[in-house]
Amino acid sequence: MLRFFLFGATGDLSIKKLYPALFELFNQKKLTEEVEIICIGRRDFDKGQLHDFIADEVGGIRDVKQWFKFIKSLNYKQLAFESLEDYQNLIKGLSFQPEDIHLFYLATAPNFFEPIVSHLSESGLLEKSNPFHRVVIEKPFGKDLKSATAINTHLEKFVDEHQIYRMDHYLGKEMIQNIMMLRFNNMLFEASWNKDYIDHVQITVAESYGVFERAGYYDKSGAIRDMIQSHLLQMLALIAMTPLGNREYADIVSAKVEVLKALKFNDVRNDVVLGQYVSHGNMLGYRQEKGVHPESATETFTAMKLRVDLPRWEGVDFYLRTGKRLMDKVSEIVIVYKKPDGALNGGCPPNTLTIKIHPDEGMKLKFNMKMPGTVKELITREMEFCQSCMIDYNAPEAYETLINEVVLGHHDLYTRWDEVKYEWMFVEKMLDECVDLKNSIQYYPAGSRGPKAADDLLAEDGRIWYSL
Amino acid sequence: MLRFFLFGATGDLSIKKLYPALFELFNQKKLTEEVEIICIGRRDFDKGQLHDFIADEVGGIRDVKQWFKFIKSLNYKQLAFESLEDYQNLIKGLSFQPEDIHLFYLATAPNFFEPIVSHLSESGLLEKSNPFHRVVIEKPFGKDLKSATAINTHLEKFVDEHQIYRMDHYLGKEMIQNIMMLRFNNMLFEASWNKDYIDHVQITVAESYGVFERAGYYDKSGAIRDMIQSHLLQMLALIAMTPLGNREYADIVSAKVEVLKALKFNDVRNDVVLGQYVSHGNMLGYRQEKGVHPESATETFTAMKLRVDLPRWEGVDFYLRTGKRLMDKVSEIVIVYKKPDGALNGGCPPNTLTIKIHPDEGMKLKFNMKMPGTVKELITREMEFCQSCMIDYNAPEAYETLINEVVLGHHDLYTRWDEVKYEWMFVEKMLDECVDLKNSIQYYPAGSRGPKAADDLLAEDGRIWYSL
Repeated sequence: MLRFFLFGATGDLSIKKLYPALFELFNQKKLTEEVEIICIGRRDFDKGQLHDFIADEVGGIRDVKQWFKFIKSLNYKQLAFESLEDYQNLIKGLSFQPEDIHLFYLATAPNFFEPIVSHLSESGLLEKSNPFHRVVIEKPFGKDLKSATAINTHLEKFVDEHQIYRMDHYLGKEMIQNIMMLRFNNMLFEASWNKDYIDHVQITVAESYGVFERAGYYDKSGAIRDMIQSHLLQMLALIAMTPLGNREYADIVSAKVEVLKALKFNDVRNDVVLGQYVSHGNMLGYRQEKGVHPESATETFTAMKLRVDLPRWEGVDFYLRTGKRLMDKVSEIVIVYKKPDGALNGGCPPNTLTIKIHPDEGMKLKFNMKMPGTVKELITREMEFCQSCMIDYNAPEAYETLINEVVLGHHDLYTRWDEVKYEWMFVEKMLDECVDLKNSIQYYPAGSRGPKAADDLLAEDGRIWYSL
Repeated sequence: MLRFFLFGATGDLSIKKLYPALFELFNQKKLTEEVEIICIGRRDFDKGQLHDFIADEVGGIRDVKQWFKFIKSLNYKQLAFESLEDYQNLIKGLSFQPEDIHLFYLATAPNFFEPIVSHLSESGLLEKSNPFHRVVIEKPFGKDLKSATAINTHLEKFVDEHQIYRMDHYLGKEMIQNIMMLRFNNMLFEASWNKDYIDHVQITVAESYGVFERAGYYDKSGAIRDMIQSHLLQMLALIAMTPLGNREYADIVSAKVEVLKALKFNDVRNDVVLGQYVSHGNMLGYRQEKGVHPESATETFTAMKLRVDLPRWEGVDFYLRTGKRLMDKVSEIVIVYKKPDGALNGGCPPNTLTIKIHPDEGMKLKFNMKMPGTVKELITREMEFCQSCMIDYNAPEAYETLINEVVLGHHDLYTRWDEVKYEWMFVEKMLDECVDLKNSIQYYPAGSRGPKAADDLLAEDGRIWYSL
């Protein structure tokens, strides 16, 4: 049977993402035949109170009748994360079979990973090397290389790497999963996926909202640690990885690590832009948000230009950009091709292939044709495939996919320790070298496209941002 | 001023294509400010009878008022093509200026090209080497290499090559003109346009109608001389030509000629299929058509596999197919990419890029993505750009474009003598080597997809036709 232990069961992530995902999997009978979901939190709830709490909090469920059936199946256990006794109580009355899956989902702050895992181990719920005992941890994986290493070193005392599932929910998104598929299963794209044909790549993850109740965490983190270190570097790794002859998990990760190790700046202080939003209209500025230090120098926006120091990408610029309180919530990757040589194409715009991740999922290709009715005049046209526009399209949420994968024991969509390690190494080095940039932070109005300096970063190279 | 001499003014081509094209150009004021259209035929018409004749025959004109204004502007001259005296009469009353454009459009059978051109020359209407004096001739440019050479040798006595405009109306079609544009102005397509990435190419020109009143000509010609020698080899040349650093007319033609000279078969007798339609439902068989010999062995269908013996296309098969009385009227070129290497793509279908020429104009790209909701399952998707589906789309007819080009003195969309020569050399050699195939002609029901042997031609290579 599957025992799904959800730590942090009354937290924001559980309410917003995990219960809906578990419900979908429950509904589709993907949680194995026998499943027990044990919700664990510090609050003094009983089962009924948990049900009421979730019922109140969750919206957007289509099949309400099934939903109430689902939440009634949830058990609740109050537990102080640091009390070994509570874990020993937790185990009481459980009968174990050798192939029972124990899935510990730690939807908690990272400082609780250590006590939870050690106490699980000590109480016998979590056996080292047992492939049926799995621990899922959520980013942030630490707040820097040192803390991440500390967490990892601690985890490794109690579980093997193959028992750890580090969740970066971006990897569960349909179009992020599609990057490898698109690259390696389409000769047309494969043919051009290198420095000879690609001019540069743009990766944008723009959020329209502010920091909400995460201000306490966010103000210590900022856009680079929160978004670049995880989602954007993972996207970059998938775009830039060397094609694989096979798709063994270990080889995929090694190919991604090869990219992460090869990241470098030409001139880090000129190639990184930091920004922070200020109030505009009825939107608060970052420093006015509850939980943010009123003189905070934390960046809520960053744009950067970097290189992947591999033969395939020699001379190709990669631009990353992410921020909060921008004019739109949009995630896109734009592959910008070189302009063709030769006199036929004086001034024709480059081909762009856009991988649309959010809000639409799909692909868009811009190409040049002849203006109808003329013999030589060019016009740029578009072809688009919008997956999310399809009738009856009902792709799983990222969390649904990812939880299903860990139930199946598949690591493909999870990150390995060395990925996290090299992500942190890159980010820390950048932050060290850019420490003075904090003093020249660029302010941008809430609801705008971000600071002008991010446009200038491309303008200096004669380029423009293609999305947002 | 422009004097447009239309020989064959009461013929089928003039009625169906040339008057409507001239009308559009007239309407758009593209025929220069001063223009005189002199319609020349053997019939004993006066101007009024010509007007009535055209008014009766032409349909589909939108602006009827303008149309009647246009046809009233047409003059008519009766002329026996072989009577010098008639040409001398034609010239009477015309006053010439040095830069007057004399445009002689020979919409006649090829056997009249010689008398018309020599008499025009002798009567002083057509001066050799005068770039303002231009002769347009329509395919068929002869019925074989010998007759084509004879026509050309004769023409060259009276005009220079640069005064001759050989019209293959396919070259005026929007998407045929677009082939070079698509190839050379889009790095994404340019990157993959060679043997490393392209598996094979399919060119289909399928007609749903029979031979109409052209049976007399067609029964002596057949699909290969009528369609392969001109339209399909031109399409192939544009697809396979080596990219140009510039777009000088001479260089473009030389690049096309390079392809035409490099055409070859692996095994001509196995790689050519001939077919003829037989009656089906209420459709007559070819041998029952008026004007066709009742035991005719003329092919109304052909499919063939050939190679372009250039380094760029080593090992790439090109399949050509054309026929009458097929189930649909459709012209398409399909670029079929290789399947990617590696285990990621077991059994995934190849990318195909379809250039749609008729009835829709546009492009269609098939590519592989991940099936939503699965982690590894593939699904093939399509992106399409349909130019002809656009609101207010009003591309010129091929003849309109081509007549406009000759008025401007542009050769880009016309064929040079050496193109025609190498087309005939290739076709004749094929017909010589396949003379016995006439005895094993494949019959196919009118309104079908053609003979099964055409499918077998691809099936032997593990392939299928992607269109029709």
